[in-house]
Amino acid sequence: MGKRVVVVGGLAAGPKAAAKIKRLDPEAEVIILEKGRYLSFGTCGFPYFIEREVKDITDLMKTSTGVVRDRVFFKEVKDIDARTQSLVVGIDRDNKRVKVKDLVSGDTYGLEYDYLVLATGARPASLPVEGMHFRNIFLARTPEDAITIDRFLEEHPGVEAVVVGGGAIGLEMAEALTLRGAKVTVVEAFPRLLPPFEPEISLIVQSHLEEKGVKVLTGTKVVKFEDDGEGYVSAVVTDKGRIPAEMVLVAVGVRPNVELAKESGLKIGETGAVWVNESMQTSDPYIYAVGDCAETVNMITGERVFVPLGSSANKQGRVAAINICGGNAVFPGVVGTLILKVFDLTVARTGLSMDKAAQAGFVPERVIISGPDKPEFMPAAKPIILELIADKKTGKVLGVQAVGYGDVNKRIDVAATLLYFKATIWDVMGVDLAYAPPYAPAVDNIAKAAWAMENKLQGMMEGITSVELKKMMEEKKDLLILDVRAPWECKELNLPWQVINIPLGQLRRRLSEVPRDREIVILCKSGTRGYEAYCILKAAGFENIKVLEGGLIAWPFTRVEGVSC
Amino acid sequence: MGKRVVVVGGLAAGPKAAAKIKRLDPEAEVIILEKGRYLSFGTCGFPYFIEREVKDITDLMKTSTGVVRDRVFFKEVKDIDARTQSLVVGIDRDNKRVKVKDLVSGDTYGLEYDYLVLATGARPASLPVEGMHFRNIFLARTPEDAITIDRFLEEHPGVEAVVVGGGAIGLEMAEALTLRGAKVTVVEAFPRLLPPFEPEISLIVQSHLEEKGVKVLTGTKVVKFEDDGEGYVSAVVTDKGRIPAEMVLVAVGVRPNVELAKESGLKIGETGAVWVNESMQTSDPYIYAVGDCAETVNMITGERVFVPLGSSANKQGRVAAINICGGNAVFPGVVGTLILKVFDLTVARTGLSMDKAAQAGFVPERVIISGPDKPEFMPAAKPIILELIADKKTGKVLGVQAVGYGDVNKRIDVAATLLYFKATIWDVMGVDLAYAPPYAPAVDNIAKAAWAMENKLQGMMEGITSVELKKMMEEKKDLLILDVRAPWECKELNLPWQVINIPLGQLRRRLSEVPRDREIVILCKSGTRGYEAYCILKAAGFENIKVLEGGLIAWPFTRVEGVSC
Repeated sequence: MGKRVVVVGGLAAGPKAAAKIKRLDPEAEVIILEKGRYLSFGTCGFPYFIEREVKDITDLMKTSTGVVRDRVFFKEVKDIDARTQSLVVGIDRDNKRVKVKDLVSGDTYGLEYDYLVLATGARPASLPVEGMHFRNIFLARTPEDAITIDRFLEEHPGVEAVVVGGGAIGLEMAEALTLRGAKVTVVEAFPRLLPPFEPEISLIVQSHLEEKGVKVLTGTKVVKFEDDGEGYVSAVVTDKGRIPAEMVLVAVGVRPNVELAKESGLKIGETGAVWVNESMQTSDPYIYAVGDCAETVNMITGERVFVPLGSSANKQGRVAAINICGGNAVFPGVVGTLILKVFDLTVARTGLSMDKAAQAGFVPERVIISGPDKPEFMPAAKPIILELIADKKTGKVLGVQAVGYGDVNKRIDVAATLLYFKATIWDVMGVDLAYAPPYAPAVDNIAKAAWAMENKLQGMMEGITSVELKKMMEEKKDLLILDVRAPWECKELNLPWQVINIPLGQLRRRLSEVPRDREIVILCKSGTRGYEAYCILKAAGFENIKVLEGGLIAWPFTRVEGVSC
Repeated sequence: MGKRVVVVGGLAAGPKAAAKIKRLDPEAEVIILEKGRYLSFGTCGFPYFIEREVKDITDLMKTSTGVVRDRVFFKEVKDIDARTQSLVVGIDRDNKRVKVKDLVSGDTYGLEYDYLVLATGARPASLPVEGMHFRNIFLARTPEDAITIDRFLEEHPGVEAVVVGGGAIGLEMAEALTLRGAKVTVVEAFPRLLPPFEPEISLIVQSHLEEKGVKVLTGTKVVKFEDDGEGYVSAVVTDKGRIPAEMVLVAVGVRPNVELAKESGLKIGETGAVWVNESMQTSDPYIYAVGDCAETVNMITGERVFVPLGSSANKQGRVAAINICGGNAVFPGVVGTLILKVFDLTVARTGLSMDKAAQAGFVPERVIISGPDKPEFMPAAKPIILELIADKKTGKVLGVQAVGYGDVNKRIDVAATLLYFKATIWDVMGVDLAYAPPYAPAVDNIAKAAWAMENKLQGMMEGITSVELKKMMEEKKDLLILDVRAPWECKELNLPWQVINIPLGQLRRRLSEVPRDREIVILCKSGTRGYEAYCILKAAGFENIKVLEGGLIAWPFTRVEGVSC
């Protein structure tokens, strides 16, 4: 028998590490200790089980051929001893021993290890408010939680549900609950949904949620929960008022499970997760930590971050396994990629936001472009709104965010790849992206964004975002809107400013109608004609002009018939 | 008035260059000379017009808001003088003058230029055989051709059609004609369809075409066309026999339109297209060439290539414009990206194939993986088969090819980005690709391929491709197939070899049933279990074993019920 590796945690990173170790070293004895009943459970699939896209909870534990990854599977296929309901209660690092409690029998026993892998995961954060213990307040942590929520929805059609937390999981669950017939209110303490996104993107998501019947309350803090006298939640009390609720889902982030690591004296990072080096080794060279319990590094800023993701978990498990078996693998970190589906929209980001970029010492500039994800002549083309953030001085790409009905997914993965390689906007223009009408426009949206950024950096275009324009409106600035769309498009436009409409094709010969002493914002559907109009005005000597970036497609405030994204 | 720029060609690269020049330098006088009737025509949309996804041929000339990009549009919106039916018949480089023939009046006139941009495009190659002039033999060159084909199909339901050429355009047109009710035969002289693809990928496409009712004849050369006595084609005569045909579409590649450049003494490259430097400048510093008439460079090999693509055309137009206006832009070349839709399949490639990689001095290794494009628990998940080619010595990624019902498009664009940055397989593993169940598996297919490649390079896995296995079968090698699928999956398997079936979960305890003196190929649905079985056998001392890479999903020969990709 070779070395013994004990893996604490049997959901994602743990089994990955265990399996890879056995493949690299068939002589190794590998033991997984999982405190719950289930192994290799796809927690990210939760919302899709709740909304009944995934029919059976065990589907989240199956291989592609329908075999449940249970104890027998691990033994027979992988020769791994995977023990469920086995809680590790202590680590004796000096003697390289863990103390395990069998949750079925209640017995405890010791287990020696040559290497220990901590894959203890993370748990949903609780809310430190009164009444958190009431029934029908869910954290959606375990498969049992998912089953309970599913049954509850089955038995309570049209239930009043409050989702606390407007982050990715909160919004995925808001969708799921709505699709199951619940009346959903999302409560978010931050001034906008999806705080890691730029406001211009967040607001489009909010507008879409509202179209789908979800009530959204941002900048709203939960103060306490009330019950019906029998221990069932009846209302969510916030700093802005009381919301009746028959169920509550709390999704206010996750916390790494670091208690075991902390008690055994392992270094905990500033983020609160287990400190590891790029080999995934903790401060004890015989102990590795992988997945949601471990810290990682933001590759752009070098900052240590806590970014729990199923994708990183798998990669980190593999890296730890290789290193434990004498190899030399590294996990380089993350660039901050996140994607989620919110009803018909895809929302995604990678890299830094404007704020974070400035904090990291860059001089960020942004550009927002709207456009179809395929050539406009393809009926299947759908709009996407893409925001590119780059460093003014170097043209280095710092971040990309996107939202839309179209293929956002592809552009974000390309952007994540660009960020990995520290690309500039000129690199973006040079990448040989695939082109055929069913798949992309001849110039892909991300390349167009790089072009637009170059124009901006070279002073050839000055833009204004939806949020900035709204702010100017609220400040009642003496602003003139020049709408360069065709008259037939403008019917539904109902903006509360002075608007003059000169279709782009007439602008050159009607320049005298445009006042030269006013600040002008040029507006069109997607921003493309706005940019053309900008060039015409600029060439004609106009000074104080800006283009509404992304056009009305990216305008989240007033719904404009036929141009909503 | 500023400098005068004359642009020869008004379809893609030409208008792009013209528009960018006017934006950079509003004082410039820009004249487009287009020999045809139409401007900014999306030629790539042809097949989608034929198959009626694009309803109107003018949709291929419209902006996103439905404005046709005609002469008036160019004048009013862009202040560009775009002259259609204006053929440039000569260039007097010494005097910087072009001679233009007005095809309507028949008059010719001279036009001076400060800079000249050649965007003369390419034309479909003809077939040098007898009868090429017969009616109903189409080249699908101009919008008029498209309209003629469309009407012909309308008037001849169920027509017998032969597509000569099994490249991208040929297959797109084969799909379009089939969807319009034609009975289609594709004839390809090369031994397989889509010659730039690996045989393992091509054969899957062929199998899919055949499922859709398209007859495919590879390794078949057209000898001549026969007519019905009235000048209408009636048959295609090949070296393998005669095919009755009521219409023929010839799609045997395109040739750059270089006559004008050649006659005026500009350097023509070895590829037959106009030689340009990375600024898109020809051998005459006042003349640029962009789009389908110009050469480019393969960024991986450094080789000069002729790769006409709408995506490159737009980028090159912009690069030429910037340089003409005193800027400093470069077009870095291409990596060989190509994507097409063939009925329900997406087929795409980027980088080098095995052959080309070896020719370029690399020592290429390949790996083929099959798997769902999303987590297997998502009902919307669809399979893709991905082949990764890397250099054995350095791990440098050389090429990626993929085919499947799933999201191939995204993986190819990520791969194209990787190739731009000369990535290694370890880079691929490190990229922070987006993960959420509606979009990707936790470990994306392309990262999995990199993992599999690392296993191969480190001698941890030996594979065999479908084509290699078929060849072994034909050579009647004494081969044993070990099928490690579950018995319920194996019913439909009907392979002409000796097969023993031991489900993966039983393999460890049934090792004695596996003969040690035979060459063994392990087979499963996707290759994943095959790899597990390989590790088990290897650990048990088996020597002569291989895994069928990509499993039966990637097996294009015998249709296996329920596992076809």
